[in-house]
Order: sequence, then structure tokens, then C-alpha cells
Amino acid sequence: MNWENNVRKVVPYVAGEQPKQKDVIKLNTNECPYPPAPAVEKALKEIDFDSFRLYPDPDTTSITEALAKYYNVSTKNVFVGVGSDDVLSMAFLTFFNSDKPILFPDVTYSFYDVWADLYRIPYKTVPLKDDWSIDKEGFKQENGGVIFPNPNAPTGLFEDVSTVEEIVSANPDVVVIVDEAYIDFGGESVIPLTSKYDNLLVVQTFSKSRAMAGMRIGFCIGNEKLIGYLNDAKFSFNSYTMNRPAQELGALAVLDDAYFKDITGRIVKTREWVKIELKRLGFTFPDSKANFIFASHKSIPAKDIYTYLRTRNIFVRYWDKARINNSLRITIGTDEQMKTLIGALEEYIGDK
Amino acid sequence: MNWENNVRKVVPYVAGEQPKQKDVIKLNTNECPYPPAPAVEKALKEIDFDSFRLYPDPDTTSITEALAKYYNVSTKNVFVGVGSDDVLSMAFLTFFNSDKPILFPDVTYSFYDVWADLYRIPYKTVPLKDDWSIDKEGFKQENGGVIFPNPNAPTGLFEDVSTVEEIVSANPDVVVIVDEAYIDFGGESVIPLTSKYDNLLVVQTFSKSRAMAGMRIGFCIGNEKLIGYLNDAKFSFNSYTMNRPAQELGALAVLDDAYFKDITGRIVKTREWVKIELKRLGFTFPDSKANFIFASHKSIPAKDIYTYLRTRNIFVRYWDKARINNSLRITIGTDEQMKTLIGALEEYIGDK
Repeated sequence: MNWENNVRKVVPYVAGEQPKQKDVIKLNTNECPYPPAPAVEKALKEIDFDSFRLYPDPDTTSITEALAKYYNVSTKNVFVGVGSDDVLSMAFLTFFNSDKPILFPDVTYSFYDVWADLYRIPYKTVPLKDDWSIDKEGFKQENGGVIFPNPNAPTGLFEDVSTVEEIVSANPDVVVIVDEAYIDFGGESVIPLTSKYDNLLVVQTFSKSRAMAGMRIGFCIGNEKLIGYLNDAKFSFNSYTMNRPAQELGALAVLDDAYFKDITGRIVKTREWVKIELKRLGFTFPDSKANFIFASHKSIPAKDIYTYLRTRNIFVRYWDKARINNSLRITIGTDEQMKTLIGALEEYIGDK
Repeated sequence: MNWENNVRKVVPYVAGEQPKQKDVIKLNTNECPYPPAPAVEKALKEIDFDSFRLYPDPDTTSITEALAKYYNVSTKNVFVGVGSDDVLSMAFLTFFNSDKPILFPDVTYSFYDVWADLYRIPYKTVPLKDDWSIDKEGFKQENGGVIFPNPNAPTGLFEDVSTVEEIVSANPDVVVIVDEAYIDFGGESVIPLTSKYDNLLVVQTFSKSRAMAGMRIGFCIGNEKLIGYLNDAKFSFNSYTMNRPAQELGALAVLDDAYFKDITGRIVKTREWVKIELKRLGFTFPDSKANFIFASHKSIPAKDIYTYLRTRNIFVRYWDKARINNSLRITIGTDEQMKTLIGALEEYIGDK
């Protein structure tokens, strides 16, 4: 079949498992254990069914306005997409068009190299330091663009705003993307720096701290010119990406700040006692500021623990990949879920 | 700003206007005038709000299974996306990777050249014949891929299955995409041909005949290998594109076949009397099998009629573009809406 010669062949990203059974403790894809804001539920009940026959607002005005207000920027500084993966994918397509390699950490979100391959973008990884922190000096070499998460995934380590700023200011000739998917669990966003650096794009998501992974909403903030180019690409890709329920409900999730602070605060509190328990059981981990902990045990291989936990219907994330194949990424669930996890680990480790 | 050198600069697609006021008669973007199926409304009321915190099914199993059953193919022959624009965009990215130009009609869906530009795909247009029909001989020249809508837009003209088959069989070495967005209003789909031709991809949408433009659901059917490559690209772009409401409600729209046949039948019936009325008022048009009519008046310029209708809060589509700048694309609405349109045209034309 000759038509196969003209196919763009790629090796896709493999997301964490989404089990169909309901009775599992799901700590494998960093979802929020609490439901979305009450105002979202109310709006869902009042949604205008007849309007579903009509195209949604291509400009996602309601979410864009809510985000602009919340982050104290202009609507021209905000771009909204179908989850932060959509935003990141469009940003790779739009901004990384150099013959020079883009740079990202060697241990990081495993979608970055997939997007680079999809769009035929050359890339080079910058190894994390031995303590899992980002090697800022490595990002000062010649490149076609820079991207890293902060906090990083799957390590959970947060880099100070001054470290991020140093990387951004060292790279004025390329776009620097800071992927803040996990920023709301104790980190500090660099959104305020977007008014100072025209090459800085900050990406966030509703899938974690806003408890709306199922609705697919992500966004980024940057200077008007960056956002303009991104919109041109988006409107060259698909005019209507965000459906009506996502647009009508998404804005409300932003507006309910009290609920947002409550659930993120609860997750942080849970995370901190889980750290103490994991240490007690012989685990070590970088000091996470995300809604997960990246832990390895002093004597039991991560893969064995992962396999054992599945027999107890507890799903955590494991990668059989160089450098991270002895660690588990454990999402922070409710107190009750984490007590069950710790209990199960106690039983298993006590038996060894 | 040197970073601008590495930006993919594109001229985006311009969609039909989506007015925010509610009191307009909206005949400009080919939406369905009837609401989605009753089963969709029922499911919306019963949707599991708490599940919104969890990622949706990345494999869109429920819609894929419903479509496979409805069109009598395997689930491996079905790909689902965020509207047919998303499906088409991914298909351009995946299948049109040749140095030779892809081919599409000169008068056609105006997104094709935008996608070609976005992905830097060379293209060449094949002029429609004087009667607005597709020149099948023009699609027999050397090329890197073929795409055309059937019925074509904005003409509304349907080409026989035998014509489509002739184009597909003349191009075994490239992928041929038939964009059947408007097939359900009196045309005949070439989906059955996908089992005979491994290079044929048939794209359809829920935005017109299934009354769900606001939910963003499109799909395509083709042989397993084509669908496999498309999924690889999709999972390299964004794992979770279809949100939970779209997935939960979309499948139900497919299952209610009686409602689907009822509303498409009503639209066809309305279209046929509107044709008679438009002729009476001095309009000519290709004989549409779509949910719109592409009409020009014997003496009054299309742009004037367009401008007049807006003063009456009636929106139709007009392009100030070579070859089609004396035509209006008028969506078929309800009988009542179309009576208002005809009445307004009568007043205007009678005054001339």
C-alpha cells in the first residue's frame, strides 16, 4: 500500500490507566479526589439543552474573562484549550520551529518528546541533578526553545521563582514554556513574570486543582503577541474546540475561589501526613509540592509494590524506564484513601 | 523580538459569525433547527457530576461502539474527534505528508487550504465545472492526496457514489478523504466502499444532522490501518480530547435513529419548498442535497441581500471571494424561520 509512504508515523504517548471498574482507589493520574465546585453542579442542572444544537462560542469568552480577572491580566493574555495537553500541543506547533533543539529535563512529563516527534522538532534533554532538581545551567546552552514543568513531574519538586526567572532571562531569543499543572499545591506561579518577559508562556490546567479532568480545560497566560500567534494556530486547527458544557461550567470553577482554596488546602494537608507515614515505612522521595509523591523504598523494588497494590485494587503510577524505574508516583487522594494505602503498604512491608 | 523568527505564522480560518444576541434567525452556519434527541436530554439530567473530577475514557468507547454498530463496521474502523474539523485536521497532519500537492476543488470548504498552510502541505485546486459539479477528471493527475466534500460546500451539490468511487480507485497510492458533513439530507454515503478501498477515509459530523454542534463530535470511518495511524497521531497530540458530557451524550444521539430520521426528513421537506419559493423570487442555485441552499439572484447582488437581511435580524452566509461573491449560503431552518426569510425577501425584492 503505497499511501503508507506518506503517513506521518509516530509513537504515541501512553497515559496512565483509566480502569473501568468503580471500586478501585485511583491514585495513578493525579486527579483531584474532591468533586468540582458546587456552583458547577448547580449550573449543570440549569444548562440550556436546546442550545446544544448551536456551535459554542469560538472565543471561549466566559472562561477567558474569568481567568483574566482571577489572574489579574487582560483577556488578550489568556488562551484556553481542551486540557493543558491541547494548549501545550498547540504551543509546540506554534513556537518551536527552529532547527536548533528544544530543551527539557531528562526526567519530566513524558509527553514532551512525543510532541517533539509528532511535529518533527529536534530536542535535547538536560539531566536533572542527583537530588532531582532542575539543572538551570543546562538551560543556558544554545537552543530552539525551552519547556519544563514547575513543580516538575513526576518528581514533584518545585523550583523557586528566581530559578525560573534566571532560565527565562537567559533565553530571550526563544519561547520558554513553564508548565504549571501542579502549581496550586504549595508552589508559586510565575504568571506575574509574563508582564516582564515577552517570551514566557505559563500553562495551567483545570484537571488537578480545579477537579475538572473530565471536562478538559487548560489555559496559558503570556504576552499579547504570544497569545495572538497561538490563537492564529488554533483557529487554523479547529475553530470550535471547547464544547458548551465545558465553557458554561469552566468559568464557574474559577469564580469559586473559596472552594478552590479549601480543596487544595486539604490535599496539601493530606500530602504532608502521607510523607511522614511513607518515611516511617522506609520510603524516600523528593519533597513534593504537587498533588503526588514520587517515592522509592529502601529495599523493595517499586515494580513489586506497584504489582502488589494492584491486587489490593489500589492503582499508582509506575514507569519501567531508565532512572525512574525504582519509584512510584502516588497521587494524593482523600484522607480515607491514603489511610487504606498506608495500611496496605504496612501489611506488605511488614511481611517482607 | 527574535523568538518571533521561530513562530509558525498562519492565516486562520474565519468561521461564520456566532452572534451573542438571542433574537436572530440564524441561517449562517448550517446548524440544525431542532434540538438533539430526547434521549440526550434525559441522559444530561442523569449525568454523574462527581465523575467530572476524573479523566474521560481516552478511547471514547461508548460513541465508537454506537457508531460501529450503526454503520455496520468494526470499532477498529472508527475514529472519533472534537467535531469533524478536529478529525479533518488530524487527517491532514497524518496522511498528507508528500512533496506532491494535495488536490481539492477550487470552490469548497474554506478550511482545506488553511490546514494545508498550517502543516506546510503543498496543494492545488481543481476548478469546479460551470454547473458547480466536481470535475472528476481533474482528480486523476499526480498528487499527494485528495479531499472533497460530498455534498460539496457551499454548493450543496451531491456527486453519485459511482463518481466518488471513480476518484478513489484512480488514486490508490494516496489517501482520499470524502468529507460527508452534509450526507444525511438526501445523499448516499460511501462508507460501504471503505471495505473495498483501503485508502478511503469518510468523515462525518454530529453538528448538522444530529443537532449537536455545541457538543463538538465528529468521526471518520476507514480501514483498520488508516484508523490506527490516525489514533497514533491523536494520542501524540492529546490523550483526552472528548470530555465526559460529549462522550456520555454522543452515543445516545446515534442510538435514537427514529428521531434522526424524523428531523433530517423535516429539513429535506422544508428545503424543497424553500427551493420553489426562491425560484419564484428570481433566485437560481445548484440543486442542493444539503441542509443549505447556495443561491444567487438574477438582478440583486448577493452582498446587498445579505446586508438587508441582517437589518431584519436574519443571518445568512456571504463570502467576498472570487467566483462565489454573488451567492448566499442559506441554512435550512424551521418552516417558520424560512417563512420569515421568504417574507423578508419578498418585501425587499418587491421594492426593487
